[in-house]
Amino acid sequence: MTRRIFITLEYDGGPFCGWQRQKTGLSVQQVLEEAAASLTGQQIMVQGAGRTDAGVHATGQVAHLDVPDKFDANRVMEALNSLTNPHPITILGAREVDPETHARFTAVGRRYLYRILPRRQPPALDFGRVWHHRAPLNVDAMQDGAAHLIGRHDFTSFRATHCQADSPVRTLDELRVETVGAEIHIHAAARSFLHHQIRNITGTLALVGSGKWTANDVAAALAACDRSAAGPTAPPEGLYLTEVRYPVGS
Amino acid sequence: MTRRIFITLEYDGGPFCGWQRQKTGLSVQQVLEEAAASLTGQQIMVQGAGRTDAGVHATGQVAHLDVPDKFDANRVMEALNSLTNPHPITILGAREVDPETHARFTAVGRRYLYRILPRRQPPALDFGRVWHHRAPLNVDAMQDGAAHLIGRHDFTSFRATHCQADSPVRTLDELRVETVGAEIHIHAAARSFLHHQIRNITGTLALVGSGKWTANDVAAALAACDRSAAGPTAPPEGLYLTEVRYPVGS
Repeated sequence: MTRRIFITLEYDGGPFCGWQRQKTGLSVQQVLEEAAASLTGQQIMVQGAGRTDAGVHATGQVAHLDVPDKFDANRVMEALNSLTNPHPITILGAREVDPETHARFTAVGRRYLYRILPRRQPPALDFGRVWHHRAPLNVDAMQDGAAHLIGRHDFTSFRATHCQADSPVRTLDELRVETVGAEIHIHAAARSFLHHQIRNITGTLALVGSGKWTANDVAAALAACDRSAAGPTAPPEGLYLTEVRYPVGS
Repeated sequence: MTRRIFITLEYDGGPFCGWQRQKTGLSVQQVLEEAAASLTGQQIMVQGAGRTDAGVHATGQVAHLDVPDKFDANRVMEALNSLTNPHPITILGAREVDPETHARFTAVGRRYLYRILPRRQPPALDFGRVWHHRAPLNVDAMQDGAAHLIGRHDFTSFRATHCQADSPVRTLDELRVETVGAEIHIHAAARSFLHHQIRNITGTLALVGSGKWTANDVAAALAACDRSAAGPTAPPEGLYLTEVRYPVGS
C-alpha cells in the first residue's frame, strides 16, 4: 500500500538544468527522486506541476510522490529537507491526497512572478534572481501593453517554437505590472501556460517599456500568430513559479 | 590635484571578512582599493561610512576616495564597477564632494534593515540573506519591546564587549518592526550605532517575539547597563546597511 503525498517546494533554479530530469545536468526532479529513494529504499517518481526551465526559480512549485504507507506527509517533508541538503531546495509543506489527484493534471491554476531590475548598474545582491535590464522602463506603458494579452487568445506569437502543447490557445486571467522598490514585477495567472509564454511576454513588454514599441504593437504581435512577430525571450533568472492551485477538496 | 569622490555601494557581505581590511581574508575595502589602484596607478585609500562586519550586506554604504583630477565621478563609477568584477560589489552612484567632506565623520545618519525569516524550513532562495529563525515570532510583542529602546540611552547592554566607541550613549531615532510577506523586518535609524548594537537588539527582540521575554524585560536589560543582561547577538546575514545621510549641501 502506498500513500500519495503532495509537497510544496521552494528552490533556486540557478544551479539546475531545470525541473525535469536531463542527461545533461542535475535537475530538481533528480535531486528529489534520489532523496525519496534514500528514504524508502525504492525507486520513486516525483511528478511536478510545472516543468520550470534551467535558471527559473520556484517559491510554490507542487509535486507528488507515492510512498509506502508507513511514511506520513510530515515524515516525508522532514526527510526530504534533510536528504536534499546542501542543494537549494526546500520542502515548505506536505499533505496526503487522494491517489487520483495528480500534481500536474489536477492543477486548475498557476501563478508566476517575473522580477526585472531596470538600472544601469548590475545587481550585487540579487544577481541570478532578477533580469538586469540596463535601460529604464515605463511601467504604465508596459501595463497598457499587457492589457491586450489578458483573456482567451491564440498565443502562438508568445510560445516557444518547440512548444509541445496541443493547442496554442490559453486564457490569461491576470497580467499585472507594478513597481516594487527599484524593481518591476509582472504577475501572471492562468490555468496553464505555454512553453516560454511568460518569458516571451516579458521580453515583448520590455520593448514597450523602453519606448521601442507601443501598446498597440503588442496587440498586432498577438494577432499575427507568428513567434517572429513578438519580442525576444526574457532570461530565466527573473522568473518564479509562485503558486499552483487545485480544486477545493482535492 | 585630486578630487574627492563619494560612492554609494551595494554588496553581498557573504564572501567577505567585512568592510575593513584584514590580514585574515578579503574585505570589501581591499577589493575597492585594488580597483582604484588599477584605475589610477596609485595607492588609494577608500574610507567607508560604516564598518560592516563579516557577512553583513549593504544596499546603501557610502565611501570616499581621492583620485587624480583627470578622473570625474562618473568615470570612477564605471571603472570601479568594471574592475571589481566578479566580486558581488556594485557602485550605484558617484559624486564629487568638497575635500573636507568625510564619508565617516561627516555622516549625520545611518539606516539599517534586519531581515528575519521565521519558519521551520530553511530558506532555499534567501540562504545567507536572512536570519533563519525556526520558531514563530510575535511582531506586536517585538514592537512593544522595541519601543523601550527608542530615544537617547546608555546602550552598554547592547554593545559588543570589544566595542571601541568612547561613549555607550546613542540616540535611536527609529526602531520599527513589521511583517513583510513571510519575513519580519526591523528598521533602525540613528546618527551612529555601537558595534553589534542592531544585532544585539535583534537577538533580544527575538526573545520577546518567541515569548521567552516580556517587553518590560527589554527595559530592564537596557537599565542594567551590562552586556550579559541582554539577549544573544543575531547572526550577520540578516543585516543590511541601507542608507547613510549627510548634511544638506555636503
